[in-house]
Amino acid sequence: MIKVAILGYGNIGRAAEEAIKAAPDMQLAGIFHHNDCLDKLTNYQSPITNDERPVDVVLLCTPTREVPKFAAVLAAKGICTVDSFDIHGQISTLRAQLNPVCEANKTVSIISAGWDPGSDSVVRALLMAMAPKGITYTNFGPGRSMGHSVAAKAIKGVKNALSMTIPLGTGVHRRMVYIELEEGADFKTVEAAILADDYFAHDETHVIPVESVDALNNVAHGVNLVRSGVSGETHNQRFEFNMTINNPALTGQVMVSCARAAFRMRQHGEYGAKTMIELRPIDLLPGTNEENIKALV
Amino acid sequence: MIKVAILGYGNIGRAAEEAIKAAPDMQLAGIFHHNDCLDKLTNYQSPITNDERPVDVVLLCTPTREVPKFAAVLAAKGICTVDSFDIHGQISTLRAQLNPVCEANKTVSIISAGWDPGSDSVVRALLMAMAPKGITYTNFGPGRSMGHSVAAKAIKGVKNALSMTIPLGTGVHRRMVYIELEEGADFKTVEAAILADDYFAHDETHVIPVESVDALNNVAHGVNLVRSGVSGETHNQRFEFNMTINNPALTGQVMVSCARAAFRMRQHGEYGAKTMIELRPIDLLPGTNEENIKALV
Repeated sequence: MIKVAILGYGNIGRAAEEAIKAAPDMQLAGIFHHNDCLDKLTNYQSPITNDERPVDVVLLCTPTREVPKFAAVLAAKGICTVDSFDIHGQISTLRAQLNPVCEANKTVSIISAGWDPGSDSVVRALLMAMAPKGITYTNFGPGRSMGHSVAAKAIKGVKNALSMTIPLGTGVHRRMVYIELEEGADFKTVEAAILADDYFAHDETHVIPVESVDALNNVAHGVNLVRSGVSGETHNQRFEFNMTINNPALTGQVMVSCARAAFRMRQHGEYGAKTMIELRPIDLLPGTNEENIKALV
Repeated sequence: MIKVAILGYGNIGRAAEEAIKAAPDMQLAGIFHHNDCLDKLTNYQSPITNDERPVDVVLLCTPTREVPKFAAVLAAKGICTVDSFDIHGQISTLRAQLNPVCEANKTVSIISAGWDPGSDSVVRALLMAMAPKGITYTNFGPGRSMGHSVAAKAIKGVKNALSMTIPLGTGVHRRMVYIELEEGADFKTVEAAILADDYFAHDETHVIPVESVDALNNVAHGVNLVRSGVSGETHNQRFEFNMTINNPALTGQVMVSCARAAFRMRQHGEYGAKTMIELRPIDLLPGTNEENIKALV
């Protein structure tokens, strides 16, 4: 059994807990709130497993900006981690920082293991291998953008905000921003501030006042990832990947599957900080390789 | 540069040649017709590369039933191979036979590297990791089924045949069998024989007499792979992968991308017979890992 602990108990931590409990080859080794001290985690003696190896992998279900700190501390203690760090422009830097720590301490950190970055990244890599020339468009949504919602909520006069990402095709997105105003705030002023914000200024954006943002809340999300490309000299090779999913449930599940891969890689003496396109898909799955090859290949 | 040779110069061999020539990191090390003797290949001194390492990887573009023989002989000589062996029920056996030969000779054989088995297998494995419970349906076509076409052509009174696979959803397929009759053959008798053949008896099958099978020939194919599953305890997670492609062009391209993975794995001291779900997607791509992570993750 692989002993997996959860650090951070929000939407994703709760979903990860369910995925661990549903996995035939895992034990939940503990749940830690992300403001608990790190010592408590790294010195933790699991009441469930109660042996000298209290935890194999820690899932970092913290806010994304706290991931680098926790991942580095745990890697330095020789503990595998999985995170869903989702700031696309900083993934490469995070990997470069963590990799030597993991190698020095003979451990594995799987980073940016959600659905985008994450499973979508695997699909994009596979499509590049199938049709090396061409264009891939990743169309997100309809679904809530956490980053845009936070940006809208930070505008003066906004009490609460929900920014929905609506795919218009070819990677172009509309932003539907639902806001609850602070008492006395002027809608037109707030709307103008949102439209001028760098998060929204480059996309078609609609700002809509509502009584309750909470009443609109829905963790549904989706993607439509398309590529038209060239295999060898043959054009017009067309590929499409679609999904409509519960966002935290998928993120938590992907993290848990990656915990399995981290555990196996360390067993095989493969150390380092890895993104999902650097993992063997078979390592994500329970069961033996022979069983999975028979069932899936 | 990775030196790649082609064994077997039919549709797939020709497509593979184009993909090798389009690859920025490969050289074509030679083309061998599959009835050439194996010695000619394994003793071959490439006129292009003209050094002591004439070939890194041989692509086995032979008829699928000849793959196990060639793969074993080349592995025993320490040469990496890639094939698109497509008899689903025998893949596990082929892997088990080749694996010890590859390990003993420190080489890599990537088997069943086309689109199904192949890239579809990777998608199926990824979807299992994303939603471990549920049902995946792989719907093929519309496109020509080589196995069914050969089976129809083997019926007495059939001069030439083309069996098209038509997807009806949930993994159920219709067979549209276009036949040219031998002179004097009775259509009703031939039709009854096709409908009774084990290849066709279990599917909805339509037999249609035509003047020229060749006039209908088209290497277009496609897939619609769908999964509805459960992530953790969350149901109704929905996924779909579609493609419409030129079949030999995609197969040749996938084989060439896998040649790159075979080369890299051998460089890293990872030996054995592997299916595509045992490869890291990043190893299929030219360029450095850093570049690919920045572009794709």
